[in-house]
Amino acid sequence: MRRLTRRVRKKPGLPPGTLIHTGERKTEKVRLSVFRYNQQTVDFTEIDSVEKLPEPDTALVTWLHVDGLHDVELISEIGKKYNLHSLLLEDVVNIEQRPKLEDYTDYIFIVVKMLSYDEEIADVRSEQVAIVVMENLIISFHENERGFFNPVRERLKAGKGKIRTLGADYLAYALIDSVVDNYFIVFEKLGERIEAIEEELISNPSTSTLHTINGLKREMLLIRKTTWPLREITAVMERRESPLIKPATVVYLRDLYDHTIQIIDTIETMRDILTGMLDIYLSSVSNKTNEVIKVLTIIATIFIPLTFVVGIYGMNFEYMPELAWRWAYPAIMTIMALIVSGMLFYFRRKNWI
Amino acid sequence: MRRLTRRVRKKPGLPPGTLIHTGERKTEKVRLSVFRYNQQTVDFTEIDSVEKLPEPDTALVTWLHVDGLHDVELISEIGKKYNLHSLLLEDVVNIEQRPKLEDYTDYIFIVVKMLSYDEEIADVRSEQVAIVVMENLIISFHENERGFFNPVRERLKAGKGKIRTLGADYLAYALIDSVVDNYFIVFEKLGERIEAIEEELISNPSTSTLHTINGLKREMLLIRKTTWPLREITAVMERRESPLIKPATVVYLRDLYDHTIQIIDTIETMRDILTGMLDIYLSSVSNKTNEVIKVLTIIATIFIPLTFVVGIYGMNFEYMPELAWRWAYPAIMTIMALIVSGMLFYFRRKNWI
Amino acid sequence: MRRLTRRVRKKPGLPPGTLIHTGERKTEKVRLSVFRYNQQTVDFTEIDSVEKLPEPDTALVTWLHVDGLHDVELISEIGKKYNLHSLLLEDVVNIEQRPKLEDYTDYIFIVVKMLSYDEEIADVRSEQVAIVVMENLIISFHENERGFFNPVRERLKAGKGKIRTLGADYLAYALIDSVVDNYFIVFEKLGERIEAIEEELISNPSTSTLHTINGLKREMLLIRKTTWPLREITAVMERRESPLIKPATVVYLRDLYDHTIQIIDTIETMRDILTGMLDIYLSSVSNKTNEVIKVLTIIATIFIPLTFVVGIYGMNFEYMPELAWRWAYPAIMTIMALIVSGMLFYFRRKNWI
Amino acid sequence: MRRLTRRVRKKPGLPPGTLIHTGERKTEKVRLSVFRYNQQTVDFTEIDSVEKLPEPDTALVTWLHVDGLHDVELISEIGKKYNLHSLLLEDVVNIEQRPKLEDYTDYIFIVVKMLSYDEEIADVRSEQVAIVVMENLIISFHENERGFFNPVRERLKAGKGKIRTLGADYLAYALIDSVVDNYFIVFEKLGERIEAIEEELISNPSTSTLHTINGLKREMLLIRKTTWPLREITAVMERRESPLIKPATVVYLRDLYDHTIQIIDTIETMRDILTGMLDIYLSSVSNKTNEVIKVLTIIATIFIPLTFVVGIYGMNFEYMPELAWRWAYPAIMTIMALIVSGMLFYFRRKNWI
Amino acid sequence: MRRLTRRVRKKPGLPPGTLIHTGERKTEKVRLSVFRYNQQTVDFTEIDSVEKLPEPDTALVTWLHVDGLHDVELISEIGKKYNLHSLLLEDVVNIEQRPKLEDYTDYIFIVVKMLSYDEEIADVRSEQVAIVVMENLIISFHENERGFFNPVRERLKAGKGKIRTLGADYLAYALIDSVVDNYFIVFEKLGERIEAIEEELISNPSTSTLHTINGLKREMLLIRKTTWPLREITAVMERRESPLIKPATVVYLRDLYDHTIQIIDTIETMRDILTGMLDIYLSSVSNKTNEVIKVLTIIATIFIPLTFVVGIYGMNFEYMPELAWRWAYPAIMTIMALIVSGMLFYFRRKNWI
Repeated sequence: MRRLTRRVRKKPGLPPGTLIHTGERKTEKVRLSVFRYNQQTVDFTEIDSVEKLPEPDTALVTWLHVDGLHDVELISEIGKKYNLHSLLLEDVVNIEQRPKLEDYTDYIFIVVKMLSYDEEIADVRSEQVAIVVMENLIISFHENERGFFNPVRERLKAGKGKIRTLGADYLAYALIDSVVDNYFIVFEKLGERIEAIEEELISNPSTSTLHTINGLKREMLLIRKTTWPLREITAVMERRESPLIKPATVVYLRDLYDHTIQIIDTIETMRDILTGMLDIYLSSVSNKTNEVIKVLTIIATIFIPLTFVVGIYGMNFEYMPELAWRWAYPAIMTIMALIVSGMLFYFRRKNWI
Repeated sequence: MRRLTRRVRKKPGLPPGTLIHTGERKTEKVRLSVFRYNQQTVDFTEIDSVEKLPEPDTALVTWLHVDGLHDVELISEIGKKYNLHSLLLEDVVNIEQRPKLEDYTDYIFIVVKMLSYDEEIADVRSEQVAIVVMENLIISFHENERGFFNPVRERLKAGKGKIRTLGADYLAYALIDSVVDNYFIVFEKLGERIEAIEEELISNPSTSTLHTINGLKREMLLIRKTTWPLREITAVMERRESPLIKPATVVYLRDLYDHTIQIIDTIETMRDILTGMLDIYLSSVSNKTNEVIKVLTIIATIFIPLTFVVGIYGMNFEYMPELAWRWAYPAIMTIMALIVSGMLFYFRRKNWI
Repeated sequence: MRRLTRRVRKKPGLPPGTLIHTGERKTEKVRLSVFRYNQQTVDFTEIDSVEKLPEPDTALVTWLHVDGLHDVELISEIGKKYNLHSLLLEDVVNIEQRPKLEDYTDYIFIVVKMLSYDEEIADVRSEQVAIVVMENLIISFHENERGFFNPVRERLKAGKGKIRTLGADYLAYALIDSVVDNYFIVFEKLGERIEAIEEELISNPSTSTLHTINGLKREMLLIRKTTWPLREITAVMERRESPLIKPATVVYLRDLYDHTIQIIDTIETMRDILTGMLDIYLSSVSNKTNEVIKVLTIIATIFIPLTFVVGIYGMNFEYMPELAWRWAYPAIMTIMALIVSGMLFYFRRKNWI
Repeated sequence: MRRLTRRVRKKPGLPPGTLIHTGERKTEKVRLSVFRYNQQTVDFTEIDSVEKLPEPDTALVTWLHVDGLHDVELISEIGKKYNLHSLLLEDVVNIEQRPKLEDYTDYIFIVVKMLSYDEEIADVRSEQVAIVVMENLIISFHENERGFFNPVRERLKAGKGKIRTLGADYLAYALIDSVVDNYFIVFEKLGERIEAIEEELISNPSTSTLHTINGLKREMLLIRKTTWPLREITAVMERRESPLIKPATVVYLRDLYDHTIQIIDTIETMRDILTGMLDIYLSSVSNKTNEVIKVLTIIATIFIPLTFVVGIYGMNFEYMPELAWRWAYPAIMTIMALIVSGMLFYFRRKNWI
Repeated sequence: MRRLTRRVRKKPGLPPGTLIHTGERKTEKVRLSVFRYNQQTVDFTEIDSVEKLPEPDTALVTWLHVDGLHDVELISEIGKKYNLHSLLLEDVVNIEQRPKLEDYTDYIFIVVKMLSYDEEIADVRSEQVAIVVMENLIISFHENERGFFNPVRERLKAGKGKIRTLGADYLAYALIDSVVDNYFIVFEKLGERIEAIEEELISNPSTSTLHTINGLKREMLLIRKTTWPLREITAVMERRESPLIKPATVVYLRDLYDHTIQIIDTIETMRDILTGMLDIYLSSVSNKTNEVIKVLTIIATIFIPLTFVVGIYGMNFEYMPELAWRWAYPAIMTIMALIVSGMLFYFRRKNWI
């Protein structure tokens, strides 16, 4: 997944509110799209300059979506246009934020992490989504959207469900709900990987199994870091501590809260399962050592005494009467065969062979 | 038990309240049964069409039981009939819900998990039960009932206990109580399995013992996931935060709460015991390795020096006066016997043999 | 100690309040004894029929003690006589209750566990004590009393301390205090066993040591299960949430609370100590393996090379000039002695011998 | 340190408030010393009989210090003189109390543990200090004082700091502060021991290292048991829940609270460090086993094949042409030298030598 | 990092408020610098005597910075000048304080730890910063500043951001913010070290790897000890429990709180990762032992039986017909080659070679 710690903040001592983009530098233009809708109408435009930023309108809900965060200048202009606090803007462009909800009285500022499973790198990708909720205006910032919010756009256009009858707060809910839905998909993929390793663990455990288990544990750690605050965010919204959240949306927020609890439950369960797998791995290594030593012991225990016996009759003493006996050789071979049988019997009784 | 993570929700972006059944597809018809009763009368019918759904009645308590969740159309019609919220219906058909209680002011919505021990697969089976509590109406949804609520039906018919003198809230209590009672039976079965493994652990631990212990630990994990919220549910009901819960039922709900606490206690105890068994398993593997190595060491320590001794007199030097001595052979044999005795004495003192 | 899980409840679906005795079936008659006292007088009788059950009396405190729970009929009659709730009676006869305090407004119902150390089975015995506290009446139910409350009886008869000057609540306190005092005796015995194992652990650890440690850990687990709720019980009583608890008793309840905290502390300490002993056991097994391998290595390292050397001069090549040398034999013996000395020196430096 | 569990309480069933001294029996006389002071004057006397016990005086603060607890009669008389509750007196003489603060309205009763490091037994010594705080009177009981409170006495005599300008509550603070100061000295000593073991752990770990680590862990456990309640005590005092605590003392109590937090922090850190040391110990045992096995493997791997080779030419077959070759002996020696070189190269590459 | 426990407090029994400097003794003069500013003007002076200490001024914010704590006399004079409590001064010079916030009504006293990564000793350095917040006055004490607050000084001089428009509370925030910013830099360095060890762990684990991991774990422990209270400090400030904190500063304090949460998250994540690395280390040691034993077993299993075989034909019996057979020698060599092949095949199948 992500690196352990990235450069997380401004240079020490810089004034707070200094905008420093911490993500990848890109050169493409930031895309700005605007939805304006109410129960009757819906209007969608892509704009290309700051002058065209929509004016707030009490009759319509306006959704301004900013896709790309590298143009700090642009973000700053948007901030000025809608009177956003400079600390808020600093948090928008600093993509190492912890998920959080901040109530600035006139607007609520929400930061969440969009998780997605990238099949190519077989790893979880995390991107920051920042949402500003105003009376009739939603501004959403996304590092690199790649179509995650398309279903919401479709519903807005089609007017399906309640999305156009309820206000800006419901749209904010719908966006966060999309984010949370993606968590479940990520867990499905991780669950599949865990099950795959589980089989490997039983059939053929190796050091690489251990590293995969540890890697998954660490991913859980990082996902957990993004999920626990999510729970707090939805709980705060559901409690309607801000007048921007309308009563009609509360039942949906409760549903959302419920889903975040389910996510947390799943993380904790997966963590416990991975810990159990570590135990199995370690004990299977011990078992293998045990197996190897058993083989060594059986071989050594059988042949070392025999080698001693044949050594006796390899001695060159002049007076060893047995050496001249007619049946000494077959006799000694028989005795040794009996010793071997005795030992095999002993090992069998000990359940070693 | 159940798979780690199943497909848990609607496709991301679908409007909330979309009904998608996540359990097994079945083709049988959903069974609908209706009880109508008060202290004097009781009336039971099985209905086969939505038109025959009972009208609420203030003089009688009505219990509509839906056995089977795959007919999403039907569930949706029931929802319309009784004005149930679409999010509630979504939760009814999505069988991966976390147990919960939701207060929709006019009705309370409760989701619990019916656990049962399936002897055939030697595993715990979990099924979702959803209960809607209204003023004089209980609607219960069950994925696949298989007679778990029959004793409640018997009591209704016989009028035993207080079941017909108290209202709909008491019936809801009686249903949840049936569910909780089944948890104890499941624990009894799991307790038996734990005791069986415990004996195996002492008499003959093997890798399969380890896997069984780990499997039980994981089941505990999943049962725990369904039990902790149960406690919250009964606590909320007991506190009577909704007027739908009557004072006369509170003492029974307290009893129910008590039982859920007992269940949680049992889970925690079993988890601790399983952890202790893992420790014993690991140490018994170490002990076995130790045993094996001891055998190897005893054999090697006795015979390797002797082999060296007989090797000496196998050398072909021309000037080895001992070789010609008359009693050299018996002397060397005696010396070796003494060496062996000394070593056996040493091992005995070390408590190895 | 006790089995992991016993049949803990009524058959699923039976109406709540059904009396089912879950302890051992016995045939002796249940003993009923009645104390009636105030500051001036004290009167003690054993009664043998339900008709003789004492009437409550405001001038005297009445203590009805029921020794034996197998006569469900009798318990039920007592319940009717004093208007006890059927759920309460169910809990009295079901001896697998969790310790608890329930406030039924007119009376308080307390369940605690009497622990005692049974020297014969070298194990802790747990019996259920149920106490109903009314205005001037205490009813106590005990599975099998065996004289645990005799000191309280003595104090009642002798009028020592405040037992006769304070009311029914003080008597309830005195009974629970007797129970808690017995916990300390149990801990003393367990402490002695832990110390005994500790010495065994240092002098001669074996698999049986491990099983004893694990057995003690499990007992701690089960004692803990009965102690944590005890703390809650005494805390609730001390807070005087019921008017049945008089201010004069509070200071004694605080003392009682203090003792339960001390018990919990002791349990946690013992658990930590047992965990530390497990660590020592495991590391001592590793150490022993290490010892054994060291012996093997020393013997093998010394004699295997020597055996090779004598093997060389056992070869039958025709052209081996050394064989004919006059001092070859003593020379080779000296060389081998030097090799051995060198190795012994090496092992000494490595601190192996 | 102390034994795991000492006889902690009165015989079960004795009335509460029975005075039973649980410490060592001693025969010396208990010393009683009295300070009477205000801002202007200070007066110190040692008294030898109960009749001379000072009367409370509103113009002066009186500090009665009782050094020795074995004279139960005397303690009882002091209790009568100042109207102390019998439960309080029971706690004074029972030296196995948990630290606590109890508010008896007219006075506060505080129990703390004086820890000191006894160089002779290289162990921590714990003694009970009980303090009764009244309006103008402090009574302190100490099992065996040995001069710990001398600095406080000096300050009282010299009138340094605020000790004579503030009231009885400040004196109580000063006494507890002395106790807490001694904790830091104990930690310093323990810290030194931990550092000493740490070096031993790296240079030469042995079983005795393990036992020392475990012994220190257990001491931490027992110190922790005495420290956590100390925090509660100081927190309660700082919140001024009793009118006996004056506002002027609060800032000092906050300082005291701060120090107890620091002590708790130190304990937790030391515990974590000791746990880390256990891990290192265990892994170093594994490493040593690994070392030993490596030596065995190298020796065996080199010489066992060589012994086989020389064994071949020790066979007595009549038709073994090599035996008669002129350069067979040096050739075989060279081949064996090459085999050894190859193996040494292999081990070097594996990083074993 | 720092030693486990340093001499943390005054000699037991000394009156509280006695100033004892616990850091390194230094001889340089303590530097005192004064900033006086408002929105319009800014004035900076370095002063060299106590007489020149600035008078508080309601029109200007005054920042007195004391760099160096060893001149106890000077600190004491500053305390007198501004009426600081003697306990506060004691805490200023005792550099082993736990981070904390104390409200003395007229002023707030804050202690934090400045962490920095010292490349030379490859370790974290911790220094104490004490800040007194008054109405228009900030007094900051720093053990050894080394320029950490220079960026704040620059901003004050340049008048950048809001630093000169907001009051003394904002300056206090700016100083603490500088401290917190340095934590992130320290984590970056530690993160780099963790990643370096991680690679070592995979490529070439050794005992020194273990010690480094343990060392990092201990550093985490100590950083954690300084961070958790930091969270409490910022939370208390944000809640504005003192009128010294103005509403305009709250949004910045919330931002600060957010950063401390992020720091705590990072510590916990790093701790979990280090624990995971310990597991990998231990299992890699086991794996290596396994490898070594496998080599030993393969060699011994192949050659010990062969040595026995050649031993047989080294016996000196007179009647061993094989010895005289023409093809006996090549036959026996072939048989042995077959045995070796069989064993190699067996090992291959077992996946050992």
